[in-house]
Amino acid sequence: MSLYPAPPRTLTIAGSDSGGGAGIQADLKTFTALGTYGLSVITALTSQNTLGVDGIAAVEPEFVSKQLRAVVGDIGVDAIKIGMLHNHKVIDAVADTLTELFGGTGDPRYPSIVLDPVMISTSEHVLLDSPSLPALQQRLLPVCTLVTPNIPEAMKLSSIESINTVDDMKTAAKKISELGCKAVLIKGGHLSQPQVFDVLYERESSEFTIYEHPRIYTKNTHGTGCTQSSAIAAFIAKGKPLREAIQLATDYVQAALLSSFDIGHGSGPLNHLVSILPRALSAPSELDPHPFTSYLIRSCAPEWTMYTRKHPFILGLKDGTLPRECFIHFLKQDYIFLMHYARIHSLAAYKSFSMEDIDAATDIVKHIIRESKHHIEYCQSWGISLEEFHSTQESGHTVAYTRYVLDTGVSNSLLALRVATAPCLLGYGEVGTWLHDDPDTKREGNIYWPWIEGYAGDDFQTAVKKGRDLLEDTVKTHPLSAAQLAEMVDIFRKATRLEVGFWEQSWSLHD
Amino acid sequence: MSLYPAPPRTLTIAGSDSGGGAGIQADLKTFTALGTYGLSVITALTSQNTLGVDGIAAVEPEFVSKQLRAVVGDIGVDAIKIGMLHNHKVIDAVADTLTELFGGTGDPRYPSIVLDPVMISTSEHVLLDSPSLPALQQRLLPVCTLVTPNIPEAMKLSSIESINTVDDMKTAAKKISELGCKAVLIKGGHLSQPQVFDVLYERESSEFTIYEHPRIYTKNTHGTGCTQSSAIAAFIAKGKPLREAIQLATDYVQAALLSSFDIGHGSGPLNHLVSILPRALSAPSELDPHPFTSYLIRSCAPEWTMYTRKHPFILGLKDGTLPRECFIHFLKQDYIFLMHYARIHSLAAYKSFSMEDIDAATDIVKHIIRESKHHIEYCQSWGISLEEFHSTQESGHTVAYTRYVLDTGVSNSLLALRVATAPCLLGYGEVGTWLHDDPDTKREGNIYWPWIEGYAGDDFQTAVKKGRDLLEDTVKTHPLSAAQLAEMVDIFRKATRLEVGFWEQSWSLHD
Repeated sequence: MSLYPAPPRTLTIAGSDSGGGAGIQADLKTFTALGTYGLSVITALTSQNTLGVDGIAAVEPEFVSKQLRAVVGDIGVDAIKIGMLHNHKVIDAVADTLTELFGGTGDPRYPSIVLDPVMISTSEHVLLDSPSLPALQQRLLPVCTLVTPNIPEAMKLSSIESINTVDDMKTAAKKISELGCKAVLIKGGHLSQPQVFDVLYERESSEFTIYEHPRIYTKNTHGTGCTQSSAIAAFIAKGKPLREAIQLATDYVQAALLSSFDIGHGSGPLNHLVSILPRALSAPSELDPHPFTSYLIRSCAPEWTMYTRKHPFILGLKDGTLPRECFIHFLKQDYIFLMHYARIHSLAAYKSFSMEDIDAATDIVKHIIRESKHHIEYCQSWGISLEEFHSTQESGHTVAYTRYVLDTGVSNSLLALRVATAPCLLGYGEVGTWLHDDPDTKREGNIYWPWIEGYAGDDFQTAVKKGRDLLEDTVKTHPLSAAQLAEMVDIFRKATRLEVGFWEQSWSLHD
Repeated sequence: MSLYPAPPRTLTIAGSDSGGGAGIQADLKTFTALGTYGLSVITALTSQNTLGVDGIAAVEPEFVSKQLRAVVGDIGVDAIKIGMLHNHKVIDAVADTLTELFGGTGDPRYPSIVLDPVMISTSEHVLLDSPSLPALQQRLLPVCTLVTPNIPEAMKLSSIESINTVDDMKTAAKKISELGCKAVLIKGGHLSQPQVFDVLYERESSEFTIYEHPRIYTKNTHGTGCTQSSAIAAFIAKGKPLREAIQLATDYVQAALLSSFDIGHGSGPLNHLVSILPRALSAPSELDPHPFTSYLIRSCAPEWTMYTRKHPFILGLKDGTLPRECFIHFLKQDYIFLMHYARIHSLAAYKSFSMEDIDAATDIVKHIIRESKHHIEYCQSWGISLEEFHSTQESGHTVAYTRYVLDTGVSNSLLALRVATAPCLLGYGEVGTWLHDDPDTKREGNIYWPWIEGYAGDDFQTAVKKGRDLLEDTVKTHPLSAAQLAEMVDIFRKATRLEVGFWEQSWSLHD
C-alpha cells in the first residue's frame, strides 16, 4: 500500500472563521485546491459570517503551542502560513514554540513562513489589538520568509503615515524588511487605481518586483488576504521560488475573485474551487489497477456479459455443441475482420507521433498478420480451401463492425480509435481465459478446444495486456473529463454490441 | 459579476484536528474535494497528530450556539454533518439551537442532518463521555436524517451487547432507528471479514440496503468515519437521494483509502484529493471571457506578435509600401490556401456527430467559397486573369501549411483540427481590426485599404467570433488536462509559425 507520494505539507496558524470564507477554513480550502496537505493550529475561534464577526473566543496560548508541537513533531511542515494571532500572548507562544522547534532567528531548520499580518477584518472587526504590534514586529517578523501586509497594515508595521503611490509602497516595504524578514509584499488594493500594483521587496538582493493586475469589482472579497498568503505558502511548499509563487498565488486569487458567487447577505467568499475539476475516473489502485478499462466494461455490463459469457455461440464452443457450419461461417468472416483490424492499427500508427508509438502500433499489425496466417492454416484443418477463403463475401454485419471501427478511427482521436478496438482484444482475451479455466468446459473430444487454447495462450494474452496498458497509460497522462469519458463509453458499448452481433450472425445459421 | 452559481452549502459541527486528517479539517477537505461550500461550527479543539490526541480544549456551549446561529442565519445550509460533540452540554447547546433555528422534531424546515456518533478516536482517545450518551440519543437522534455508527458505537446506541453478523447489524440498526432518526447506517468494518458489509435501515419504508465493499488493508485510516459522514452530507446537499449518496460517499472513501499516503509516524490520513484534478485552464470570467484562445495566443506570444503585428508584409499593407508583386504572389497563394481551408472544414463536418455541428462546419465551408469568389473578383481588379489564377503553382510553403493543417485534422481530434485552423481565422481577424482602427494606418491612396476593410468588416469578424466561440464551447464541455492543453498549444504554435511563413514567402520576393 501507500504507493502514493505524500503531497507537500502546509500549515496554517490562524483563527477559525465559522462562515468558511476566511481564516483556517479559507487556508485549508486553498491548500486542498492547490494540491497540498493542510494542517492547522487554531489561535482563536470567531463566530462569523459574510456580514462580519459577532464573537471571538480566545484559545489559551499554551494550547496554541501544544497544537504546533503536535503537528510539527509528528508530521512536519514544508511551509507555514501565519494569519490572525489575536493578541501578544499568542504571538509570544507561537514565537517561543517556533524557536523551540526550529532554533533561533536565521537557523536553517526553519521552513518557509509567510506572515499575513492580519489586524482588521474586511468587516472592520479588530483582530489584533494595538499593544500586540511590537510583539509581531520584534518576535515574528525576524523569522519570516515573507510578510504580506495591505496598505493600512504596512502603515502600522512601517510607522509611515501615508502610503499613496507605488514609490511610497517601495519605501515602506524596504523599511518593514529592516525588522528582519527576508521579503515584504505590500498589496496595493487599497489604493484607488483601476490597476492594482503589489510591491515585493527582497532584502538580500535589494530588488523590487512589481505585480500588476486589474482591479476586480466585486463585493465578494471576504478572505482575499488569507487566501493569497496561504496560496503563496502552498506554491512555496510545492517548490516554486518566491517570485513565481507570488505570481501563481496572485493568478489563483484573481481567478477565485472573478468566479466568486453570492452566498450570505454581505461580503461573500472567493471561489476556492476555481483551480480544480472533478476527476471523472479514479486513479489506479491496488484494488482497481485498470480503472479505465474496468469503467468501460462496467458501464456496458449487460452487453459485455452477453458478449463474453452468455451468447449461445460461446456456450456452444464451451460444450462443443456449436454446429460446424456456424463455426466455419465465423472463421471466414473473422479472417475478413482481421484484415480490417490490421488496417485500423495501421491507421493508429499513422495517428501516432513518436517512433515508439508507431512501433507499438506496427507490432500489433504484425501480430494480426501472424494471427491471420495461423487462421488460414487452422481453417484448412477445417477443410476450408484457400480458394473458398478468398472468395468469401464480406457479410453485412462484418461491414458494419469493421467500418464502424475504421470510421471512429478516422473521425475521432487516437484514444477513441483504441477504445473502438478494445472490445475485440479484451473480450477475446476474457472468453479465452474463461473457457480455458472453467472446469465445466468440455476438453476431450471438443473440436473447439484448440481455438480456446489459442486465445487463452500466452501470445494472445500478452497482446491483451499490452493493449490494455496502452489505454490506461493514455488516460493517466491525459485525464478525461466526464464528457470525454461518456463519449468513450458510447464507443466501447457500440463496439461491444457489434461483437455480440458478430457471434449472432454465425450462430443464426444453425437449424 | 457573480455569474457563478453558489455551490451547495454544507456545514460540519465537530471538533478540530490540528493534524488535518479528521474533524472539521477532514470535513472541509471532503466538502472542497466534492465541490460544495464548507462551513464549520467548532465544538472542541484537539491537539492531535497521526499518533493520537494529546490534548482537548473545550469550547463554551454558548459559543458553539453562537457559531451555529451566525452561519445558519446569514448563509444557510443544505446539509449538516455532526461529528464529535465532546460532552452533553455541547449536545444540549446544538440541540437547543437547532430547535431555535429549524423548529421542533419533524419540522419540515430541517435540512438533512447526518450524525456520526463519534465516541472514541481511531487512536482510542475518548471523545464523548458516557454520561453524554442519553443526551445524544434523546436530543439529537430524533432530528437526524441518518446516523452512521460503527459497530462499537452501534452497540452503545442500541444497548445490544454483541454484534457479530450482518443479521445482528440489521437488528441493531432497526433498534437505533426507534430513537427517532429517519435512517441508520451501521458500518461493518470492525467485523473481521475480508468483505465489509455496511447495513442501511430506513425507518419509513422498513427497508434494508446492504453496501458491500472489499476491506482495504492500510494503516492510514485516520478520519475514515469523519470523511464518510461528511461525504454523505455533501452528496445529499448536491441533491442525491440517500441510498445513492451513501454509495457515492462509500466509493469516495474507498478511493481515498486506496490512494492514502504515509505522513507522520502513526495512522495517516485518507487522500481527500483523490476526487479532483488541477484545472489546466481557468474558467471563463468577465476579465478573460475566452480563456482557451487567450491561453493559446499567450503561449506563443513571440510568434503571434510577429504574425499579427511585426511582419514587414503587414507593415507594408499598413503604410501602403508593400511591393505590388509581393501582394499579387500572396493573393494567388491565398486562393490555393482557401481551397484547402474549405477541405479542412469539410473534414470537420465529417468528424462531427450532430446535424447542428455538421451545419456549423458547412456554413464555414460555404463562407470560404463565397470569400474565394470575392477573392477572384478582387484579384481581377489587380489585373490577374482567371487563366493566370488557375495555372498558379502551389508554392512549397503553401503545401507545407495546408497539408500540416489537413494532416492534423486527419490524425488528431476535431478539437485539434479546429486549433490548427484557428491562427488563420483569429489572426486575420486581429490584423484586419488593428490595421483598420489604428489612426497611423494610411487610408487615402493606400491600394491595400479595401483588403484591410474586408477583414475588418462585419462578415469576417462575425466568422471570427463564431469560430472562437466554437473552440471555447468545446473545452468548456470537455475540459482539457494539462497534457492535452500542451498538445493544443504545440499545434497552435506550429500553425502560427506557418502563417508567419506565409507572409514571408510573398515578402521575400521584394527587391
